[in-house]
Amino acid sequence: MNASIIAVGSEMLGPTRTDTNSLKITAALEDFGVGLVRKSIVGDTLADLRDEILYDVERADILVITGGLGPTEDDLTREALAAAFGLEMEVDQSIIDRIAARFAARGWVMPEVNKRQANVFKGQTTLTNERGTAPGFHIETRGKHVWIFPGVPHELEWMIATYFRRWLEELSGGRARHRRVLKIAGLTESGVEEKLKPYYDAHAPEVPTILASQGHIEIHLQSDGAENEARALLAARERELADIFGNNVFGYDDDTIESVIGALLKSRNETLATAESCTGGLLGSRITDVSGSSSYYLGGAVCYTAAAKIAMAGVDEALIREHGEVSEPVAIALANGVREKFGATWGVGITGIAGPTGGTPEKPVGTVHIAVAWPEDVKHRKFFWQGPRTIIKWFSTQFALDMLRRSVLKRS
Amino acid sequence: MNASIIAVGSEMLGPTRTDTNSLKITAALEDFGVGLVRKSIVGDTLADLRDEILYDVERADILVITGGLGPTEDDLTREALAAAFGLEMEVDQSIIDRIAARFAARGWVMPEVNKRQANVFKGQTTLTNERGTAPGFHIETRGKHVWIFPGVPHELEWMIATYFRRWLEELSGGRARHRRVLKIAGLTESGVEEKLKPYYDAHAPEVPTILASQGHIEIHLQSDGAENEARALLAARERELADIFGNNVFGYDDDTIESVIGALLKSRNETLATAESCTGGLLGSRITDVSGSSSYYLGGAVCYTAAAKIAMAGVDEALIREHGEVSEPVAIALANGVREKFGATWGVGITGIAGPTGGTPEKPVGTVHIAVAWPEDVKHRKFFWQGPRTIIKWFSTQFALDMLRRSVLKRS
Repeated sequence: MNASIIAVGSEMLGPTRTDTNSLKITAALEDFGVGLVRKSIVGDTLADLRDEILYDVERADILVITGGLGPTEDDLTREALAAAFGLEMEVDQSIIDRIAARFAARGWVMPEVNKRQANVFKGQTTLTNERGTAPGFHIETRGKHVWIFPGVPHELEWMIATYFRRWLEELSGGRARHRRVLKIAGLTESGVEEKLKPYYDAHAPEVPTILASQGHIEIHLQSDGAENEARALLAARERELADIFGNNVFGYDDDTIESVIGALLKSRNETLATAESCTGGLLGSRITDVSGSSSYYLGGAVCYTAAAKIAMAGVDEALIREHGEVSEPVAIALANGVREKFGATWGVGITGIAGPTGGTPEKPVGTVHIAVAWPEDVKHRKFFWQGPRTIIKWFSTQFALDMLRRSVLKRS
Repeated sequence: MNASIIAVGSEMLGPTRTDTNSLKITAALEDFGVGLVRKSIVGDTLADLRDEILYDVERADILVITGGLGPTEDDLTREALAAAFGLEMEVDQSIIDRIAARFAARGWVMPEVNKRQANVFKGQTTLTNERGTAPGFHIETRGKHVWIFPGVPHELEWMIATYFRRWLEELSGGRARHRRVLKIAGLTESGVEEKLKPYYDAHAPEVPTILASQGHIEIHLQSDGAENEARALLAARERELADIFGNNVFGYDDDTIESVIGALLKSRNETLATAESCTGGLLGSRITDVSGSSSYYLGGAVCYTAAAKIAMAGVDEALIREHGEVSEPVAIALANGVREKFGATWGVGITGIAGPTGGTPEKPVGTVHIAVAWPEDVKHRKFFWQGPRTIIKWFSTQFALDMLRRSVLKRS
């Protein structure tokens, strides 16, 4: 079984927006072992859309179309389908009533134009849309299945969950794709690939997907089939990978490095404070993206000047005079100082040069010192990042969080 | 003149990645008045790719293909083009030499497989790629122009700038699309639409594009034609819009609200400090995304606890006891306190409940107090945001920055 997708709408043919609905449809397809052969985006032109439907339906068992179901004259998906497959249309009064009721609930009168959305295909399945006015459709023709969903993302999501996944599940006879994502910090993509070589050799031709994100690597495992066997296989593979990567695996599936740190600190009843220079508050912001972070994160100081480092994080002025603001001793003093100031178990200090100006031959743009302090010790690392400010800031917080994670794990 | 785009690569048919190169190509096409009729994504299968090329070339004057030019057996764009158009291929020794030299420069030997990238089309134009190993192509056939670029984004960008834009400029005879973007804060999308009604009426059927981003609205103006007239028209439209929206227009084109504040403070030799509770450092992080922000941003305090508000921003304990941490008096005390602590001209204080827990009937999740303080005065506003933590944090910083911008403008 395979599938193709058409997204309809001229607004997705400009330089600012493109189709992303197809990613949600593909996720549903993949969950039930259906591969995608192609996808395309076409504008609101009847002939183009009709041709595209006819081209696609020859090339896949399932065709999914999104968009072009609105009430205006630009919305031509219904007409194109009728033209492509020679389908007859009829008015479904229950849909008019439904739409009128939606408008009435807000105290509005249904515009006449919305009646277009009650045109359905004779002898085919109409899909009620509880999130909006446009119904969807499931058309069976030429031995193929054509599914048509509205393009509004939250309407589409509801329709996929309500109709499409259930149908796919039945179609696949319970055969489904199961996934497990391992998240790795502290290694480059090629470093991960290198360590994976014996794993590849052992399991060829089975190949996990490797995705590099900003500052972390994901290994996507998948297994098709009945739930029990698939889960057992994934668990076995996961154990092998955990042996290979050890502490470099910071989390699974929806984990983020900040959520993992949150869970660790919470379970240990420990607290955290931060002193940031070049990251300007990004570290604190990432930590507080985690719900419940107020139970372990006490706060921090953003010290963009030498005076602020002294006043807000208790850094010794002499240290700054001797070593400069961007130095190992100052990073350590920031971590220790903010830990004491807030009375926290853990303190993190970051100082560096985010650029594009401010670099020197000895301390080029991208030089960043990070320190993690706790009651017994302090750890420091020096980094050189390349790229624009936002990248240097991101990588600095990513590695600061990973240093903190490793230190917490080691302390236990 | 119109165009279509094919992105080649099976990795873009899964649920995690899709084509975004087409947005850059579309921007170049639009700049020279060429519209896009369709775009599609196909996997690494020879027959599918050949069919797609033949389908597309019938439907547009210009066909742009990205990807599938690598050295491995999965990379089939060259073969598909040869099959589609009956083109003959030949080996270009200068490309082999070039690739070998690239490898040698890193101390490596060119893998044999890279020689595939030296297969070029007899009688057609090969495009040297200074950013990578894969050359691109410009093929003229059947009265159509087919451009083929590598899929690696920074290689593609270089090729668009170096070859494609120049060709489009020649093709269009200097006729180009000029753009101006106005950025608006403090109004909703429907609020902007409402104010635009007389403008629409005056200039119909000319319609500007309205794009809503997180916490700001963009009005995209465009004008096709010779530079001078186009720019004059845009300037006239911009003046009308500036009259309609006044101070709600915070910037133009690539401006961000944080970059606009930076330019304002720099020109006035004034400084800024922040005290953040529920935004956790996001405000400081956004301010320091601006290059040169160290000349006006002194730093801030992230006060995630009552103790931190007292110690780091000098908030009076009695105020917190009486009004609670999330209250107008505490927001004002944060703004005033951090301003004094850092000796800054401007102080911003934010305190609120980012949720999803911690809300009460009197102070539900999403309640946020923001204050801006300066030597003569302090301004406060109370907001209610809906959504997840990250949205509440974002909107709080967006409106804090806009309150600061308006206060600075008003003070002058």
